[in-house]
Amino acid sequence: MQGEKAVLVSPTALHSFCQACFQKLGLPASDAALTADNLLFANLRGLDSHGVLRLKIYADRLRCGGVRPDAVPRLVAETESTALLDAQDGVGQVAATQAMRLAMAKAEKTGAGAVGVRNSNHFGAAAFYAMMALERNLVGLAASNASPSMAPTGGREARLGNNPFALAVPTRERPPLVLDMATGAVAWGKIFVARQEGKPIPSSWALDASGLPTEDPEKAMQGGLIQPLGGYKGYGLSLLVDVLTGILTGSAFSIHVRSMYREPDRPTRCGHFLAALRIDAFAPSQEFGRQVDEILELMHSCPPAPGVDRIYVPGQIEEETQRQRRQQGIPISPALREELEELARELEIPPPF
Amino acid sequence: MQGEKAVLVSPTALHSFCQACFQKLGLPASDAALTADNLLFANLRGLDSHGVLRLKIYADRLRCGGVRPDAVPRLVAETESTALLDAQDGVGQVAATQAMRLAMAKAEKTGAGAVGVRNSNHFGAAAFYAMMALERNLVGLAASNASPSMAPTGGREARLGNNPFALAVPTRERPPLVLDMATGAVAWGKIFVARQEGKPIPSSWALDASGLPTEDPEKAMQGGLIQPLGGYKGYGLSLLVDVLTGILTGSAFSIHVRSMYREPDRPTRCGHFLAALRIDAFAPSQEFGRQVDEILELMHSCPPAPGVDRIYVPGQIEEETQRQRRQQGIPISPALREELEELARELEIPPPF
Repeated sequence: MQGEKAVLVSPTALHSFCQACFQKLGLPASDAALTADNLLFANLRGLDSHGVLRLKIYADRLRCGGVRPDAVPRLVAETESTALLDAQDGVGQVAATQAMRLAMAKAEKTGAGAVGVRNSNHFGAAAFYAMMALERNLVGLAASNASPSMAPTGGREARLGNNPFALAVPTRERPPLVLDMATGAVAWGKIFVARQEGKPIPSSWALDASGLPTEDPEKAMQGGLIQPLGGYKGYGLSLLVDVLTGILTGSAFSIHVRSMYREPDRPTRCGHFLAALRIDAFAPSQEFGRQVDEILELMHSCPPAPGVDRIYVPGQIEEETQRQRRQQGIPISPALREELEELARELEIPPPF
Repeated sequence: MQGEKAVLVSPTALHSFCQACFQKLGLPASDAALTADNLLFANLRGLDSHGVLRLKIYADRLRCGGVRPDAVPRLVAETESTALLDAQDGVGQVAATQAMRLAMAKAEKTGAGAVGVRNSNHFGAAAFYAMMALERNLVGLAASNASPSMAPTGGREARLGNNPFALAVPTRERPPLVLDMATGAVAWGKIFVARQEGKPIPSSWALDASGLPTEDPEKAMQGGLIQPLGGYKGYGLSLLVDVLTGILTGSAFSIHVRSMYREPDRPTRCGHFLAALRIDAFAPSQEFGRQVDEILELMHSCPPAPGVDRIYVPGQIEEETQRQRRQQGIPISPALREELEELARELEIPPPF
């Protein structure tokens, strides 16, 4: 997707552009900046599927009523360690950030904080929220549900989202430990690539239209579905994420979550779950950080299998990509560039190129 | 493993036998009963690898000092929503049950409770603790680390346990939703079966001794390792469970967790993490239960793939097995029967057959 024709764009310019778009679309200045932060966070870390690639659909949804630009999240329930926010069909990033801040404040007071968000929309990269906890030396968790795209094991119709969750853990000297994963076996992008290259895919990745596992990327793409990761275990994980983010919060769940693409004029009604845990309520923080460094070193130093150069730890590739892209810029494909230029014209904002 | 020669034994008789063994081995009466509860829970639900199959190694460890029979868990840290217990090298079931009770009490007060356990031993089936939350209409979570048996993705040496976790969610009319899973792709038992049947295994299940994925069960068993579930995602999950159960609690982690089998005379120093969440802090409980029923129904009613009879939900097979085994008894293989009879002789207790 980022062939030789991709241009490298400065993160600052892209951020300003996103922020200007969101302001033009009716978001208050601070919400516009925050939502731009979230998209650029994803692009910098190489999670391009959650970066400015989404700006167009976000803009479409803001323009046609699927997302309310001026919604103010409302606190609907609260205990010492928990809370529930209603996003009021606003921007997912705005409600989720507020929820994570609240979860962190509660964790600092009582040791643990868990905040649900209902009636929300796409919140972008989950790691963005989990990693907020790192600055305050907390463990962070963020999860969301999404419109259905996977079948339960044995089924052939979409009943569960490729629901993501992220966990972030502070270290002492190493880059933080950040696990950010969806509950599907693989992203569709990898299946596109296999088709382009004419290669078979592992039978654990996708189903064909009849619901059977397929090694043919073409068949997967003709009415097939992504499989949950690792079979029934990924199915169970996706279901549990839906219960915590969708049902517990009073949001939509399973087939009731609307697609952000197919119904741009209607709220998705997805839900989020954000949590934080105070490390020094359990272990001395210094010792904790030192031991997380040690376990990461134990992974790196594991003797590699034949043909393996390096053993990675969760979040490492994203960290390295971020360091590189901060200096070199963010690659934007010709098609995406065209899309952003058109959006710039429509919104009468200078493009970032 | 449960061929035609298995005998069916009454759960009550097996429970009494386990309890008598544990008392003879020095456990206080209530701890002996509780540990027997945990083993029988596993057998009734068909999780035979965590049932009375473990009685012999538990007894060996209690006899040679790996597990202290009379250890009393000690509270070492506490906040409003968290606590840390030191199991003092005692029976894992005793410390984990106490920790889950404390997590539940905290959740009832503040909305969320999380309790760590350090310096513990094998705690049996994780679902046992997660399901304690159901009686109080809470969501329950239980996790533990274990001695290393999996490599990080790309590695060829064991650096992470096949670390288990369980989540239990109350329903209104249906059996509860219980996800109890280890972070490995598969249990060794399935690889044994494939070898017996002379069938290949999926390449995502195991590594051979050199660290390469293999489809040959024989090669997997000759110095190979189980792979994490779903590749690097399972690796990340196992690592995160180790951080929460091992490092956060101040227990051993990664290669520092001792094998319960290879060093029966030494504490494993594994750790656990137990948590509970109050449903009515978020959603009205009645509505929550109704919607969990609905999402389970949405899974069951999904059109099945060709050749699939039924679509299961997490915990369903265990629930059905439990109903059956409560009436018909628990199947005990000839080898296991012999082992239990020998233990009965050694401890001078009547065998349960």
